[in-house]
Amino acid sequence: MDVFGRNVAKDLLKNPEKIKKIILQDNFSDKDIISLIEKSNLRVEYRSKREMDDLSGGVHQGIILTIPDYQYKDLNSIINSNNDDVIVILDHLEDPHNFGAIIRTCEAAGIHSIIIPKDRQVQVNSTVMKTSAGTLDSMNIVSVSNIVNSLEQLKKAGYWIVGTALENSVDYREVDYSGKIAIIIGNEGSGISQLVSRNCDFLVKIPMYGTTNSLNASVAAGIMIYEVIRNRK
Amino acid sequence: MDVFGRNVAKDLLKNPEKIKKIILQDNFSDKDIISLIEKSNLRVEYRSKREMDDLSGGVHQGIILTIPDYQYKDLNSIINSNNDDVIVILDHLEDPHNFGAIIRTCEAAGIHSIIIPKDRQVQVNSTVMKTSAGTLDSMNIVSVSNIVNSLEQLKKAGYWIVGTALENSVDYREVDYSGKIAIIIGNEGSGISQLVSRNCDFLVKIPMYGTTNSLNASVAAGIMIYEVIRNRK
Repeated sequence: MDVFGRNVAKDLLKNPEKIKKIILQDNFSDKDIISLIEKSNLRVEYRSKREMDDLSGGVHQGIILTIPDYQYKDLNSIINSNNDDVIVILDHLEDPHNFGAIIRTCEAAGIHSIIIPKDRQVQVNSTVMKTSAGTLDSMNIVSVSNIVNSLEQLKKAGYWIVGTALENSVDYREVDYSGKIAIIIGNEGSGISQLVSRNCDFLVKIPMYGTTNSLNASVAAGIMIYEVIRNRK
Repeated sequence: MDVFGRNVAKDLLKNPEKIKKIILQDNFSDKDIISLIEKSNLRVEYRSKREMDDLSGGVHQGIILTIPDYQYKDLNSIINSNNDDVIVILDHLEDPHNFGAIIRTCEAAGIHSIIIPKDRQVQVNSTVMKTSAGTLDSMNIVSVSNIVNSLEQLKKAGYWIVGTALENSVDYREVDYSGKIAIIIGNEGSGISQLVSRNCDFLVKIPMYGTTNSLNASVAAGIMIYEVIRNRK
């Protein structure tokens, strides 16, 4: 995949063996990055700003790197790892900024695995990588065809499934989150899908006191994740 | 100020008296919006995609509205309102998505006022408005020349000042947040400035268990805000 921007480039150039190709804008002048590239012995292509705009769709800051596509992990390896008492599941998120921020929150909270559906869900891309602020490598992102099937597998492995919902739900502070927990974060517009919601062991809500009835998805995820790990560490 | 995008336009067109001008891309075809515009009796200008790109800097979705600039509120009116037991202060945030998401979280949490500095801080703009998801109108945004002076005013009015910091700080769950509280959220890169930090009554940290030492600013704000209101409502 292609990734853009100076911060991402600086991070990646620390381990240049992962980089397949570098494209620089013809007047690129960031000395730190140029020095890192020289040390890496990687071949560089130069292009005009217009060509770079076309390649990236916009905000490239003069540098585009091609790196191998993200290698998604397998659900079974996660379930059998004994290292994952808390797992986060994204139920069809659309916004790469939310996905990236959730990866960053999970890493900070000591969570190692995130499950996402293959379809109608933002995948690991350049914006996700950038927003995750260097934490993507520490995370196992699992891609699954069907979330409901994965919930059944997780239940068999002893996980309690927690989803957020406005109706038929209890205050998120009232649930006992000890044991193995999988937290589901719903789509930005429509929340958790009905079928997924019916497979939850607990439905919880974050209380709201204004006119809005939802939080930004990555903010809601942050509040839920820190509530679940509240008494664990 | 100019605001862009269909969702923002739909929201604003419900109260069209606030709109000063509408610019549509010459092939604009969203029937819902066109019908709202017809009802509003507002005059419409048509422009090419290229001209719209130049006016907006990018993501306009074919519609630009000119509305009055945001009217910032005065700190004294907030302090004297008796309606603001919890206030949020942003210490030089840069990212409009973070600002917008924090407005949304505050509104959901029943907080009415946010203080921001006049300089080196993202102001209320189109992206902030969009990300706040319709909650900006319910919020008092106070613009101040000097945060430290404002902290002194808030302390005189009985507020306890809570800031986040990695060092010399206690776990955010260990502080008693009863009484009047002002929560400071620091800059995305550098956190809370030293002078502001020295004026805090409490310095707290959200514990982290991975390699990253910070959360996205709007995620950290969400966790802190819901901790402060935890036992109030």
